[in-house]
Amino acid sequence: MTAEQVARAAREASNMLQTITSAQKSEVLRRIKQVLAERREQIVEANREDKEAAKKEVDAGNLSSSLFNRLDIDGKGGEKYSTLLQGVDDVDRISDPIGQVTLARKLDEDLDLYRVVCPVGVCLVIFEARPEVVVNIACLAIKSGNAAILKGGKEATRTNKALAEAIQYAIATTETKGGQTKFPEKAVQVVSTRDEISGLLDMDRYVDLVIPRGSKSLVQYIQNNTRIPVLGHADGICSTYLDEPADVKKAVHAVVDAKTSYPAACNSTETLLVHKNVLSTVFVEVAHALLKAGVRLHADERSLKAIEAAGITKGEGGEALASLVSKATDDDFGHEYTDMDLAIRVVDTMDEAIDHINALGSKHTDAIITEDRKNAEWFMRRVDAAGVYWNASTRFADGFRYGFGTEIGVSTNKTHARGPAGLEGLTIYKYYLFGNGQATADYGVGSGKRGFMHKDIVLDGDVRNKFVI
Amino acid sequence: MTAEQVARAAREASNMLQTITSAQKSEVLRRIKQVLAERREQIVEANREDKEAAKKEVDAGNLSSSLFNRLDIDGKGGEKYSTLLQGVDDVDRISDPIGQVTLARKLDEDLDLYRVVCPVGVCLVIFEARPEVVVNIACLAIKSGNAAILKGGKEATRTNKALAEAIQYAIATTETKGGQTKFPEKAVQVVSTRDEISGLLDMDRYVDLVIPRGSKSLVQYIQNNTRIPVLGHADGICSTYLDEPADVKKAVHAVVDAKTSYPAACNSTETLLVHKNVLSTVFVEVAHALLKAGVRLHADERSLKAIEAAGITKGEGGEALASLVSKATDDDFGHEYTDMDLAIRVVDTMDEAIDHINALGSKHTDAIITEDRKNAEWFMRRVDAAGVYWNASTRFADGFRYGFGTEIGVSTNKTHARGPAGLEGLTIYKYYLFGNGQATADYGVGSGKRGFMHKDIVLDGDVRNKFVI
Repeated sequence: MTAEQVARAAREASNMLQTITSAQKSEVLRRIKQVLAERREQIVEANREDKEAAKKEVDAGNLSSSLFNRLDIDGKGGEKYSTLLQGVDDVDRISDPIGQVTLARKLDEDLDLYRVVCPVGVCLVIFEARPEVVVNIACLAIKSGNAAILKGGKEATRTNKALAEAIQYAIATTETKGGQTKFPEKAVQVVSTRDEISGLLDMDRYVDLVIPRGSKSLVQYIQNNTRIPVLGHADGICSTYLDEPADVKKAVHAVVDAKTSYPAACNSTETLLVHKNVLSTVFVEVAHALLKAGVRLHADERSLKAIEAAGITKGEGGEALASLVSKATDDDFGHEYTDMDLAIRVVDTMDEAIDHINALGSKHTDAIITEDRKNAEWFMRRVDAAGVYWNASTRFADGFRYGFGTEIGVSTNKTHARGPAGLEGLTIYKYYLFGNGQATADYGVGSGKRGFMHKDIVLDGDVRNKFVI
Repeated sequence: MTAEQVARAAREASNMLQTITSAQKSEVLRRIKQVLAERREQIVEANREDKEAAKKEVDAGNLSSSLFNRLDIDGKGGEKYSTLLQGVDDVDRISDPIGQVTLARKLDEDLDLYRVVCPVGVCLVIFEARPEVVVNIACLAIKSGNAAILKGGKEATRTNKALAEAIQYAIATTETKGGQTKFPEKAVQVVSTRDEISGLLDMDRYVDLVIPRGSKSLVQYIQNNTRIPVLGHADGICSTYLDEPADVKKAVHAVVDAKTSYPAACNSTETLLVHKNVLSTVFVEVAHALLKAGVRLHADERSLKAIEAAGITKGEGGEALASLVSKATDDDFGHEYTDMDLAIRVVDTMDEAIDHINALGSKHTDAIITEDRKNAEWFMRRVDAAGVYWNASTRFADGFRYGFGTEIGVSTNKTHARGPAGLEGLTIYKYYLFGNGQATADYGVGSGKRGFMHKDIVLDGDVRNKFVI
């Protein structure tokens, strides 16, 4: 199939998905779980072939071992596959956002306006390695009533194909009760070649949203090569600011986590900003803890002096720590290490820290450590980021931790969806107007003209939560 | 100033606007109205000069007279200027969307997450002719806490400059009470040369949203020349479908309005779809009324035959009407006439009408005229458009008619804002997390690990409507 055929098939599926009920979606999700369980052996076998081929690439130095590890679908004694199956249930359990009424207004007698949540339409999701993403995205798309076109990493081609076939078979063989609409098989499609992607990025006529999940270069390539809205983030340059009245215990606990609990994650702290008045107190404790955890500190002049003055890089054990400390250059700031590295800059005022973040951060997640509520408030309002935290690790920026059930991606956009995006990120709304033959020319000022009523319609809970017309 | 200087100044103003209160915004809006009233003579004089220059262009055939008419700021015996002043009050009266809490969740003890509405940031608004748009957009931007860069039509350069100077002077001289923050003067900037626009479209580092208001070619040029999200519509291809059980009176009233009340508007109906079973009944009445109103009908074969069979283009007066009827070509469908023209196509089923709209419409606003509620429901769910109407004119798609107070534009996007967009279209949200030094590594499965609580925080009305931290 050509890119256009794939995109048009997705659009047709999307049109059909507009009249699918929540119950029908649940039936399909349960069937998907069933088929994935039945075909486990086949899928694991396809995964084994992918892993064999990838192993050769690792040995030849063409593939990183971390990418190789993420390829595995049946690891930890089969626990990974069980988690994958469990994930289908998890998505099924999230409440269906489609049909919620977010505005209800009587424009006039017999002229009622409703704003109702509906699917965005057709989503193109591009990701690397981890084949379980196929299942997760397919389930999120179905639950939110979107058609999805998936493009995985080439290392996982066989696994992705086996998973997609299982999902399409499940969709085609679901017996939905009482619905006029059969669930459209093309609601989930998987494409595999790179050519198809560049073709699909041109299909703004059929595709409504592109969601890239992967490296900075992947995301930037997509942002630069499509007119379709892109949901995601190229950079995760998060900062933590140690304010003057910072609590040392909270600072150490949150900052060490923010840097070390998963350095490759987009929500890890890359820059530590330090108020000059806590240099010799809170900062040196934090620096010591970071060094002991193995973090390489790229310190500006003043913070370097404070580390030296505190003596933590001297004496017994100090020498090993000293090797982790270096002088920061301009390039260290506004840089995403995705590793055990941290840039450190001293500021004279909180506003200087805020300006630094707004100028060099990536609008992802930034934290302040302080005991002063007024300072926290100022920082949180002034910092322009999807997440602004007070006394907590930046690593909390995550759909599961936020309680969204799962996440489709993390967005540093400032339109549509921001921060960890779950099912809601895959929805938009449309306006339903119920009239009785009215013309706009009936309204206005002057004789025989009517004015608008603009009265809110009071909805009972059932209608507000689900628009069943 | 270079495009980069303008954009950076707007970003700095935007950062300052994060801590502006609703009361301060009101003070600024009231001051703007005052200064605009004080400088009325100067501004009208600048407008007179613009009109004189434009008149020459009209006479030379370089400018359309409709564009010329829209240039006027003081017409109707000064009523237009009074309306402009009144518009400032109208925006002031809309409730401030900033600070609303749309999600409040306890992740754990002492770990509270809030999703709070905030400004998008920096908006670039590009429009043609009508200089009163400067005032309207400036007020909307201020009310929503956004910095705005405005680029108007070159015909209105002097008027726009005079208006912008009045607004900036008002901002600079507002005495806001008790605020730590002075209102930033660069919250509203006006640029005038075309060069600056192409430079500003590259400023995705500083500009968050572009809003083009004008011709299809203007909007398409912008969509094709920026990576910044664009809010707007290039096309307004709206359809009305006459269903089998359509009421003839409602059909005539709504369709004549949808075509004739303002043919140049984006929400005018451009295509009439007709169920074959109402051809000789409802349709001929509608066609007759449209012809009498002077609408040129581009009819497909079957509708053409129905018009002829009904005899409305024969006999006394019929000949004049006959000249308005022609045979439709493929180009007539999916075409925006913005004039007194209407394409007509007969369909065998309602689904054929829906497919036509989804394939050839512009996702703006589409209507069904029917007495069958089930058909209306199916149509409204299946049609993929910002507005789906039952027995009403498509011309109702408008921010004022929807009760939004005013509108920043109409969006056919399927992300962020859809349909008429008011203040809400200029907002996004950020997540506030209030912690007590927590680390993500504290949470998970296993000994010593904590699970997430994910309990909704019950807010009283005051907090839900305004996040005052």
